[in-house]
Amino acid sequence: MTEPYSDADKQALYRAIYERRDMRHFCGGKVDESVLARLLSAAHAAPSVGLMQPWRFIRITDNNLRDQVYALVQTERRATAAAMGERESEFLSLKVEGIRDCAELLVVTLKDKREAHIFGRRTMPHMDIASTACAIQNLWLAARAEGLGMGWVSLFEPDDLKTLLKLPADSEPLAILCLGPVESFYDRPMLEQEAWAERAPLEHFVMENQWQPNEP
Amino acid sequence: MTEPYSDADKQALYRAIYERRDMRHFCGGKVDESVLARLLSAAHAAPSVGLMQPWRFIRITDNNLRDQVYALVQTERRATAAAMGERESEFLSLKVEGIRDCAELLVVTLKDKREAHIFGRRTMPHMDIASTACAIQNLWLAARAEGLGMGWVSLFEPDDLKTLLKLPADSEPLAILCLGPVESFYDRPMLEQEAWAERAPLEHFVMENQWQPNEP
Repeated sequence: MTEPYSDADKQALYRAIYERRDMRHFCGGKVDESVLARLLSAAHAAPSVGLMQPWRFIRITDNNLRDQVYALVQTERRATAAAMGERESEFLSLKVEGIRDCAELLVVTLKDKREAHIFGRRTMPHMDIASTACAIQNLWLAARAEGLGMGWVSLFEPDDLKTLLKLPADSEPLAILCLGPVESFYDRPMLEQEAWAERAPLEHFVMENQWQPNEP
Repeated sequence: MTEPYSDADKQALYRAIYERRDMRHFCGGKVDESVLARLLSAAHAAPSVGLMQPWRFIRITDNNLRDQVYALVQTERRATAAAMGERESEFLSLKVEGIRDCAELLVVTLKDKREAHIFGRRTMPHMDIASTACAIQNLWLAARAEGLGMGWVSLFEPDDLKTLLKLPADSEPLAILCLGPVESFYDRPMLEQEAWAERAPLEHFVMENQWQPNEP
């Protein structure tokens, strides 16, 4: 049995959990190679269904390619705005990505040949998405502790990103991650600060033994 | 700008990331209500696409209901085993859940009325699954730091679990979480210890600018 975590250790973990933010504002700079290695290693320590380790990381170091990723996100940003109806202009006023400003750009994609993995996925094939999200959350918390911001951008057409990065047909991109130094971290989620959405209190999210509609 | 994290703080976070295990062996006992509240609060601090907070937690306190959840997982365990082909008996020899032995049983499900959320989901509707997995990973890490084991069971037929817990038709259960005291944490992932699967080194998972098949 390993040593219990000290109160200070627990506090450090909870601090990262509560101070982690989905960042869209970056200030260039760079991410030290050794720090990036620690972050990717933390991601790789995530749980995965049947130990399939479905995550793959593509580091975008080519600036021309970064521009193409940016363009692809802009296309979806406009399409999303058009689908927003009365909130279109409000949506367009939000900064929804930091692709050109972040130090490092990573694309996270699901591996190919996933149909071979049945364990925990026969009725729940999307568990590979869940496992990969756990890996990204590890990376996110580690980045926060290292003083780096991260933002998960999902405003893209997956098929277009697949084509751009020459992904296999049976792979599936899940995230464009913007990573790097920031001026400061948001005090609250940016979408809350900008009054896009409110956070609801935890008690509305916990039920006992069966579904109980308890939202406000 | 908040204070940088000390080396000890970073170490505490990395320790939780590396020592977290997907547990299937529990030793009964109980989870203190204040600890459970901290864990759920940590989950609730997760990022979510468009701040939609899609997660809902159902705490199973009724022992008869716990037995029914167990039976439902056993049914899928047998169906998965039958689909395993030559690894059927090997799969059946694994302990794949701790539902009857864990102190607390939680079901995590996606909220209803999700189609209203377009932000980051127009082309990526499964981002609600990803957000909920981030919440579960927060809970998992916090549980590890609190000295509690957790296991994510996905061996179930979602429609049967929906019926059992009276979930709305447009909800979607994602996890049965076993949580509680354990005799000891696995040194390595249980499926690695049992030689079900091997973990591959990180370098096979990182590519540059485009897909590069680099698995062994």
